[in-house]
Amino acid sequence: MVQANDPVVLMKQEVGRVAAARVQSDTVVGLGTGSTTAYAIEYIGQRLKNGDLKNVVGVPTSFQAEVLAKKYGIPLTNLDAIDKIDIAIDGADEVDPQKNLIKGGGAAHTREKIVDSLADLFIVVVDANKIVDRLGSTFLLPVEVIPMAVTPVMKKLESLGGKPELRMGMRKAGPVVTDQGNLVIDVKFDSIDNPSELESTINNIPGVLENGLFVGVADIILVGEIIDGKPNVREIS
Amino acid sequence: MVQANDPVVLMKQEVGRVAAARVQSDTVVGLGTGSTTAYAIEYIGQRLKNGDLKNVVGVPTSFQAEVLAKKYGIPLTNLDAIDKIDIAIDGADEVDPQKNLIKGGGAAHTREKIVDSLADLFIVVVDANKIVDRLGSTFLLPVEVIPMAVTPVMKKLESLGGKPELRMGMRKAGPVVTDQGNLVIDVKFDSIDNPSELESTINNIPGVLENGLFVGVADIILVGEIIDGKPNVREIS
Repeated sequence: MVQANDPVVLMKQEVGRVAAARVQSDTVVGLGTGSTTAYAIEYIGQRLKNGDLKNVVGVPTSFQAEVLAKKYGIPLTNLDAIDKIDIAIDGADEVDPQKNLIKGGGAAHTREKIVDSLADLFIVVVDANKIVDRLGSTFLLPVEVIPMAVTPVMKKLESLGGKPELRMGMRKAGPVVTDQGNLVIDVKFDSIDNPSELESTINNIPGVLENGLFVGVADIILVGEIIDGKPNVREIS
Repeated sequence: MVQANDPVVLMKQEVGRVAAARVQSDTVVGLGTGSTTAYAIEYIGQRLKNGDLKNVVGVPTSFQAEVLAKKYGIPLTNLDAIDKIDIAIDGADEVDPQKNLIKGGGAAHTREKIVDSLADLFIVVVDANKIVDRLGSTFLLPVEVIPMAVTPVMKKLESLGGKPELRMGMRKAGPVVTDQGNLVIDVKFDSIDNPSELESTINNIPGVLENGLFVGVADIILVGEIIDGKPNVREIS
């Protein structure tokens, strides 16, 4: 079991708490996916319970976010019922100096991009080790594809200079299947020089639903660090 | 019932026959969707049956194509089992002078684009009334979207100058659902000045799987006409 005094856990909790503190009453909140975001959802629920927040509804980006929102008492809505999203809180797998992101480690990047890109204010919550000089340095680029197109899409990604691999499941035989019933190809690019162009090029391959490049979407990055054994939150905006 | 001597039926049959005659032995054939393509599938099956063709396998673009291929005895394969597609035969809803297309009247344009764009030779079979000076003149542009994203995608399409409508089903309550379990938004654009740019822009909207613009994919257009009451096939290449 994770210890409550594990510094990494304390740091994730602190980042989640700081993000949750930005949420205001009478707003629609995009609820992201991942371990740090999970704490943000928990703290939003706490604020609703203790009366610090009122009239907040969430738009989940995944089954995980939906389950957590229900657990912590955040009423949910969907994109048909709202005019806009005021604030979204979500994690990332890599963040570059221009606040561009790679997401999709949780295979939820399609729904995340739909929700996060609609938010007036998109806050990203990450550990310091997700900060990179250049996207693709440490993390593979996830691409969601419809099952029948996996082979031709992999060939096309190779022709773009990538090394594609079908993401295989754990606790499930065969490949990971997304919440939308599709598959995920993880692609190693030696160097992503132009994230905006690559995002568009990959989305234009027939059979691709969405890739994990989020260019020009994030507004604020909250970075969790451990300084002298204590959690600290740094803001990049 | 349709009469066998109906000139429109005779014309569609003739276009299908001419397209089927282009198929050679020992090839992989992309099998499109639609009423004219259905005749091409029938004639390919006939050629296999009478020994004129040997060792042909088909890659279907839809359930409809799959059912017809089975009916007419064409062995089927999928994109994982082949290296390339030699020839694809498919219909279109509009064809412009640059051989760019709008497809998706049958809600099959995503799978069609995957298959058709892989073919060394892509032959389009259409009636003369599908030929337009400018795409979007007579037909709405179909966009396949995942269900949760319908509302924000429609708003985004409006901001691009389009008039979007969710395609509703016949013989089914509510909207049309595609073979992939998604929905279709039909968009009226007053003028599609740059099909290539619009194709890419729409595919980059989060939640969009694929739109019906096929730019630079078609090689040959076979156009069925009725001249002096008799079917005629004109080739544009």
